[in-house]
Amino acid sequence: MTKKIGIIIGSTRPNRISMSIATWLQTAMDQSDLQIDLIDLADIQLPFLDEVAQPSDGHYELAHTKAWSQLIQSYDGFVLLFPQYNWGYPAPLKNALDYLYTEWRGKPVSLVSYGGHGGFQAALGMQLVVRGLKMQLMSTNLQLTLKKTDLTENEQFIDAQQALAPYQFYAQQLGAEFVHRLAD
Amino acid sequence: MTKKIGIIIGSTRPNRISMSIATWLQTAMDQSDLQIDLIDLADIQLPFLDEVAQPSDGHYELAHTKAWSQLIQSYDGFVLLFPQYNWGYPAPLKNALDYLYTEWRGKPVSLVSYGGHGGFQAALGMQLVVRGLKMQLMSTNLQLTLKKTDLTENEQFIDAQQALAPYQFYAQQLGAEFVHRLAD
Repeated sequence: MTKKIGIIIGSTRPNRISMSIATWLQTAMDQSDLQIDLIDLADIQLPFLDEVAQPSDGHYELAHTKAWSQLIQSYDGFVLLFPQYNWGYPAPLKNALDYLYTEWRGKPVSLVSYGGHGGFQAALGMQLVVRGLKMQLMSTNLQLTLKKTDLTENEQFIDAQQALAPYQFYAQQLGAEFVHRLAD
Repeated sequence: MTKKIGIIIGSTRPNRISMSIATWLQTAMDQSDLQIDLIDLADIQLPFLDEVAQPSDGHYELAHTKAWSQLIQSYDGFVLLFPQYNWGYPAPLKNALDYLYTEWRGKPVSLVSYGGHGGFQAALGMQLVVRGLKMQLMSTNLQLTLKKTDLTENEQFIDAQQALAPYQFYAQQLGAEFVHRLAD
């Protein structure tokens, strides 16, 4: 049975590079029996957490929370794709995670961070968060080191395929790990 | 000369408890020659980071970024006051930090986290971020453990003074450390 994986795009900055990485990753992870979707937080447009009750209570009042809950419930596993900002993870991603609680629990998750040094510190902080949410952290997590020479002056890829080629093998491994973990 | 300390209130949740903690802290930290202000992110209402250029470039286009930059430049030191959500720091606080860059550099900062276990993991993640921003992490940082019995059903303090009394000494120490670090 086909399993659904959501790549959650954790940056909403106007000049973000993450869409190029996400579409590369979606293809590179491809496996039979795996449906891999992009979940773009810039489209979903959650405001800063504005529910009165704690998410762990599971009492959602607002339409945007209920819609987000429904969407996340429909997935079997996740990739969190995020840049490192100031040795930490970006706010829109943490906000989207904090809206829900039981929806995340027990689901496999891989952290794909990127930055000048691969986003090591942001990944470290996010490892704590996914453990706090009782997700299953995958064995395969990617830290993508982006070189200045891979990017234009406007911070976009000159050639995304070429820049990300060193990570192709690991992205394939990640797809395979999802298939293995989610086998019926 | 009077030094200005800003207590940045990092939660904007409707049901947040942080205003009670902030006003307690403001009084408990009080020292002569120290002006301690509350900086409430719920009032400042920054959207998710929407500048095109990277904040480290220092080219701000938007009025809300310029106003935030002016406000932060006017302070000599900061307390970051924040709850722990899912073993991490809250999104509005990280978002507000990520808007700016040189404005934070070199300024003393104390982390005051709170939660059922004092917010240990959130403080750990935030320690990375303030190092990433090249701030001076204070020696005095508070982890406030809130007991269920200190709170009403609606998650507000029954008696904030009593609940926070165990931390009074440390808050005084924090005020004294700011005076010492900022001495001309």
